[in-house]
Amino acid sequence: MSQDQAKTAIERFERQIRFILEIDKLKTIVRRTYLLNVNRAENTAEHSWHLAIMAMLLAEHANEPVDIARVIKMVLIHDIVEIDAGDTYFYDVSAELDKTERERVAAERIFGILPPDQGTELRQLWEEFEASETADARFALALDRFMPQLHNYHTQGRSWAEHGITADRVLERNASIADGSERLWECARALVDDAVAKGFLRPSKEK
Amino acid sequence: MSQDQAKTAIERFERQIRFILEIDKLKTIVRRTYLLNVNRAENTAEHSWHLAIMAMLLAEHANEPVDIARVIKMVLIHDIVEIDAGDTYFYDVSAELDKTERERVAAERIFGILPPDQGTELRQLWEEFEASETADARFALALDRFMPQLHNYHTQGRSWAEHGITADRVLERNASIADGSERLWECARALVDDAVAKGFLRPSKEK
Repeated sequence: MSQDQAKTAIERFERQIRFILEIDKLKTIVRRTYLLNVNRAENTAEHSWHLAIMAMLLAEHANEPVDIARVIKMVLIHDIVEIDAGDTYFYDVSAELDKTERERVAAERIFGILPPDQGTELRQLWEEFEASETADARFALALDRFMPQLHNYHTQGRSWAEHGITADRVLERNASIADGSERLWECARALVDDAVAKGFLRPSKEK
Repeated sequence: MSQDQAKTAIERFERQIRFILEIDKLKTIVRRTYLLNVNRAENTAEHSWHLAIMAMLLAEHANEPVDIARVIKMVLIHDIVEIDAGDTYFYDVSAELDKTERERVAAERIFGILPPDQGTELRQLWEEFEASETADARFALALDRFMPQLHNYHTQGRSWAEHGITADRVLERNASIADGSERLWECARALVDDAVAKGFLRPSKEK
């Protein structure tokens, strides 16, 4: 190896390590969902871990054939931009407005820490997730939207109640689960119906 | 689909969801390492997420060619047994003694929640990680042992100090990093040397 090649190899490794240290911050980004067994909100790193295991186990319920390894990678990195852009609450319409721009700037900085080839690979995977135009992305999004229904249902609708969310909004905002997995959407609807029946989710604002 | 097939499909899906709910508990298993940017210990779920991203990015530094997708899956599930068995501190020799049996019983129960084919797949992946006899497992183990060196170094040796760990023990207990990645082992040794030089890791008990 020439001196130049050695220098490039060292710089490459340093950028990889710098990125790995940087994303430790994702463990401090707090979501609106609550854990099932202790009284605290979930953070985005552990949420991403949970989705990756779901991708491993639920791929058979995707509407179309998916590349499980790609879906796993996608969900592992899908929220890394939140390190700079924060977690935008799913039902907060005003925050959604500038979310795209905030996250684009974040992606630029954070994926830019990596060696260019790896930065580009992760960024493209993230953009694919956001665009939701491929089978892999649609299924990844379905997992991402399905999981909070499980958490909400099994914490007696705690986060729904805290934010005044009603069943009609849950169903409207999450309908795209069906684009990735009819099976998960069927399950999500059943959870919503049961949550209403059990009294921990109001049917609509009017009632 | 016959009535029997439909019943089997429902039961399969229910087992998958039950497992997904069960592993939420991994977010409450606290490790000895500290996060880099906030004052709290890391939990095992977010640790597993971090390793999975490392596997994506550092595979080129494995000594032997590895199947990245398998390594990612392996690190995602490698600590799930801690839900029942707890996190055994790496430098606690007495706790290591019955660790194998505690974790075997845990694996039986937790992977047993899944449909048998998936339970067997995850269990075999976990056993492969534990045995450390394949290239994928050796690299996964190298990542698992390398990460705490990064966390310790970048928190001024906080966890080392709290447990009276010295450089000679760090090097002795982590030498197997070299079996998975000479590159990561070289980096770990440099971190240890520098930590000693900076005064946040004692060289040995005697000194």
